[in-house]
Amino acid sequence: MLKTINHGLIRELQLNRPPVNALSPELVTALRQAIEGAPRDGIRAIVLSGIENRFSGGLDVPLLMELDRTAVGNLWREFYALMATLARSPIPIAAAITGHAPAGGTVLPMFCDWRVMAKGSYKLGLSEVQVGIPLPPVILAGLRRLVGPRQAERLAVGALLISPEEAAYIGLVDELTDPDQVVARAIARCQGLLTLPSEAMSITRQQARADLIALFSDRHLDRELDEVIAGWFSPSTQETLQALVHKLGRKTAV
Amino acid sequence: MLKTINHGLIRELQLNRPPVNALSPELVTALRQAIEGAPRDGIRAIVLSGIENRFSGGLDVPLLMELDRTAVGNLWREFYALMATLARSPIPIAAAITGHAPAGGTVLPMFCDWRVMAKGSYKLGLSEVQVGIPLPPVILAGLRRLVGPRQAERLAVGALLISPEEAAYIGLVDELTDPDQVVARAIARCQGLLTLPSEAMSITRQQARADLIALFSDRHLDRELDEVIAGWFSPSTQETLQALVHKLGRKTAV
Amino acid sequence: MLKTINHGLIRELQLNRPPVNALSPELVTALRQAIEGAPRDGIRAIVLSGIENRFSGGLDVPLLMELDRTAVGNLWREFYALMATLARSPIPIAAAITGHAPAGGTVLPMFCDWRVMAKGSYKLGLSEVQVGIPLPPVILAGLRRLVGPRQAERLAVGALLISPEEAAYIGLVDELTDPDQVVARAIARCQGLLTLPSEAMSITRQQARADLIALFSDRHLDRELDEVIAGWFSPSTQETLQALVHKLGRKTAV
Repeated sequence: MLKTINHGLIRELQLNRPPVNALSPELVTALRQAIEGAPRDGIRAIVLSGIENRFSGGLDVPLLMELDRTAVGNLWREFYALMATLARSPIPIAAAITGHAPAGGTVLPMFCDWRVMAKGSYKLGLSEVQVGIPLPPVILAGLRRLVGPRQAERLAVGALLISPEEAAYIGLVDELTDPDQVVARAIARCQGLLTLPSEAMSITRQQARADLIALFSDRHLDRELDEVIAGWFSPSTQETLQALVHKLGRKTAV
Repeated sequence: MLKTINHGLIRELQLNRPPVNALSPELVTALRQAIEGAPRDGIRAIVLSGIENRFSGGLDVPLLMELDRTAVGNLWREFYALMATLARSPIPIAAAITGHAPAGGTVLPMFCDWRVMAKGSYKLGLSEVQVGIPLPPVILAGLRRLVGPRQAERLAVGALLISPEEAAYIGLVDELTDPDQVVARAIARCQGLLTLPSEAMSITRQQARADLIALFSDRHLDRELDEVIAGWFSPSTQETLQALVHKLGRKTAV
Repeated sequence: MLKTINHGLIRELQLNRPPVNALSPELVTALRQAIEGAPRDGIRAIVLSGIENRFSGGLDVPLLMELDRTAVGNLWREFYALMATLARSPIPIAAAITGHAPAGGTVLPMFCDWRVMAKGSYKLGLSEVQVGIPLPPVILAGLRRLVGPRQAERLAVGALLISPEEAAYIGLVDELTDPDQVVARAIARCQGLLTLPSEAMSITRQQARADLIALFSDRHLDRELDEVIAGWFSPSTQETLQALVHKLGRKTAV
């Protein structure tokens, strides 16, 4: 489900939950714990990768549809904790987007330090509205930080899934490369940061990410989470989600 | 002056005041009322268009120069109300910029959801400073939201009129197309939004536009309007405006 | 050290401290005073230029390494005062980046109105972290204003030195031209602004730069300066700076 591959002081955490690397509650928690644990092992940077052609299909909707209100609430709380952990990480995290990355698959890289994506006929984007989920405000804020208010409005409201090329053009990802070079480029970016004077780099990094980190210290975040969870159970959202699961036919991930 | 053309649940409001679609006080008020009224008719999205080669020449300066202080004050209050109505619209509005769109012709699309412009030797931009009018702060803030602080400073201070290509490059418009396709593309963008789950789309849209809407809930807006109106009557502005009207030769719009 | 060349109502201030136009305490103070003094001479716009192939190499680190804590503190206070003077200038300032512009050489143009740079194999960027200096927060904020939060994080944390072409692409500079045209283009930009109605231009300019100016009215700025000065004397920074001076071999500027 989550493979750990050390490259010297850089640790690759590979999402590995075929067929589409959908995020189950267990995977969300495991990923958060792995990121929190890395610095304790002396690791100095993290690469977050996926499998061939698939970075992550986002939250595992068919699985979530079987959960009761408490379990869905816990999942969303854990997902917020994961985003916060990515944002607050004391060591750099580069996302190696190895393939398709819709919805939650786009969200995770947004809170990393840097994003390299595989060229190819892949799609990414915040497609939540397509499945009836209003885009959670903290995700919208993270998106605005990367692409600005105009593109964030266009992408989020239109629930657009876009190509790697368009993502690079508007700043949703930072670099494109061949699929077999994605992890190597992410490692190289981390190595570049680790050659710098570490104290100056870390202080500057905290400063440059202070606005991102601040999204998660908002005193209204509990209320936001309550609204996100309530939104999940709104009749119109449930109807759309059930139609989606029905369309998928069997209980595989989105 | 303002034509209404329904395309199913999408209503096109066409600015139609030849020769240059200048905004008279009556047109400003009529447009605001038409936008406010559309949802009450069951309309679910609006396209704001102009005539061939002309989206809008902005405020009708020669006409305004004949008005007394009270009437000019009312015009500016109505223009602010129109911008606020565009920003707050509960249904999406796509601007179909069919041609030239200087000054006020650029302002109206800035507060819409999305902007498609005709390719061609047209000009748009916030040229207010050219005619002696300091750019009103709320318009500058709307501009910054689309193109960022650096480009907003460059465009606003320099009063630059730019090409559709440059506007698309910096984000002042979202898409370019052939002149005869502009309205069709705006309708298509609206149709795309209307196929989405409506509750999720609307909630996300409100969230994504909250910063734009907030510009008009500022408690200092009355003072800003007072300053804009006082600015209009400053000796140097009046001198520049009168020279402009003289140059235009006859009482046609800018 | 600082040449003054008047082009009519536009004054060129040329950094002229070969070999690399490094900023000594005297040059920092002289530049601030020259900018403050220009409007009193009836000057209406300023061009800040460098010498052939060199705009500025930034702070003169070898020289600074010979200073005691009081003198270093004074230099940083003067450098902050220079940035504030550029930001607050009542008349426009165009930066003519004639060549290499690392670190402080990039900082000065960031607080000007506009930046034109010479095409060529030059480098610019906020490389402070490379020499062990955490990027001062006000400089990071100025950078974010020009290139947005994503690029600011990438450039500042990575301490990247980039080409003029990349700088123009991301918005760190506004225009590129041939080396022998850089000053002429900066003068032309100033002339363009001076043909506009001056009251409307000045009011709009103050409004468009209010966020930049506000960076220097922050009540926490004294504490920030204390931290920047303390950072300079942190053991790890001193070690990196001393290694740099040693590598440079002799007491020439960076």
